[in-house]
Amino acid sequence: MDSRYTQIKQLPLFQGVSQDKILALIEKLPFHFLKFRSGERIVDLQDACTHIQFIVSGKVRLVTPWQNLRVTLEQILSAPNMLAPDFLFGREIHYPFIAYAEGTCGIVQLRKSDYIQVINSDKIFLFNILNHLSMNSQRATTSILSITRGTIAERLAMCVQALTSSTSQEIKLKFKQRDLCALLGVTRSTLIRTLDKLSAQGILTYSANEINILDSRSLKSIIHA
Amino acid sequence: MDSRYTQIKQLPLFQGVSQDKILALIEKLPFHFLKFRSGERIVDLQDACTHIQFIVSGKVRLVTPWQNLRVTLEQILSAPNMLAPDFLFGREIHYPFIAYAEGTCGIVQLRKSDYIQVINSDKIFLFNILNHLSMNSQRATTSILSITRGTIAERLAMCVQALTSSTSQEIKLKFKQRDLCALLGVTRSTLIRTLDKLSAQGILTYSANEINILDSRSLKSIIHA
Repeated sequence: MDSRYTQIKQLPLFQGVSQDKILALIEKLPFHFLKFRSGERIVDLQDACTHIQFIVSGKVRLVTPWQNLRVTLEQILSAPNMLAPDFLFGREIHYPFIAYAEGTCGIVQLRKSDYIQVINSDKIFLFNILNHLSMNSQRATTSILSITRGTIAERLAMCVQALTSSTSQEIKLKFKQRDLCALLGVTRSTLIRTLDKLSAQGILTYSANEINILDSRSLKSIIHA
Repeated sequence: MDSRYTQIKQLPLFQGVSQDKILALIEKLPFHFLKFRSGERIVDLQDACTHIQFIVSGKVRLVTPWQNLRVTLEQILSAPNMLAPDFLFGREIHYPFIAYAEGTCGIVQLRKSDYIQVINSDKIFLFNILNHLSMNSQRATTSILSITRGTIAERLAMCVQALTSSTSQEIKLKFKQRDLCALLGVTRSTLIRTLDKLSAQGILTYSANEINILDSRSLKSIIHA
């Protein structure tokens, strides 16, 4: 079997699509198969999103910085996955993060116009991408509507919810404490109290400049109770 | 000219599509043309999104309640517009609001499966809907990444940003003061100080249980400075 087929058929966008259809698309469209060494940069912050990028093997580390604060959110996406499919269209067509290969990593990319052709070639693609984009879009609405107390834990959960997906792993915040306090609108002592509590529940660990989310599902459930 | 065509061609989803194509779709697919009297309910909270609903004439008032707080956000959408196109697919396929006719109002609706057929019939539809959903999805990410101080004004702006669009008008919050303070994680006196400041800038007016956003663009610009 064509190894390109094996790599592509596992991707979420291609779920439910027939083998013949996928093979025909691989023949017809210029899919680019790229390999990155560990630590190599795949996309830089504010690069234009000219191609859809699929992760077909290995892992990618995304580093998302705040614009005016020394706070960054890191997360790992494992194959099979996509890089920011919701930044290819709309108003902001620039990546909001830097992406690095975490270990050897395989990326398949396709020009935006060819990607449109893929989606247009079968209702299943359309359905898969509408589901994906709608889910991302709903996250903002439902997480804000689920706030009940406006606690620091809820605000931390909202940040993580808005910037990561259910497939994100090893989520971390790196920060200057003063800037994280500004982001969450809180004093240092209240922040530490909240982090101590979440740490005791096994949801995260933290040090002076870093929070490691151990259990993002439990963290997010704080705003979906 | 067919009045159904005149109503449909103005909709954002149909921008750039030829007259022949639109007329053919109107013939082929069961578009429902509905009229609502002022004050009539068009959709109820948590109704299943089984149809795409287009506003083709008049205005619709959306009332979005928080799940566990006595706070609601109201907004007016004018024709031509859509009701919650990002809640037809994904995880949450129930309306997060109640929609009422504000004056006499015309709605065109189409079953979800027929809506998929429309999008699939031409690349322009696909492009229009990808743009729309991506823009909604980006709102969450970019508004959180733009926070620089975590002030109450920024948090209020984020709520409005996440729950309204650039076409929303007459945006209002109605609340029990205690619950709004909880939502924003703030004391009553700090809230009043912030509202006084925004009011002096002409961004909003407020009373004991209601905030009227007069200038939503300026409010949103607080998190996009």
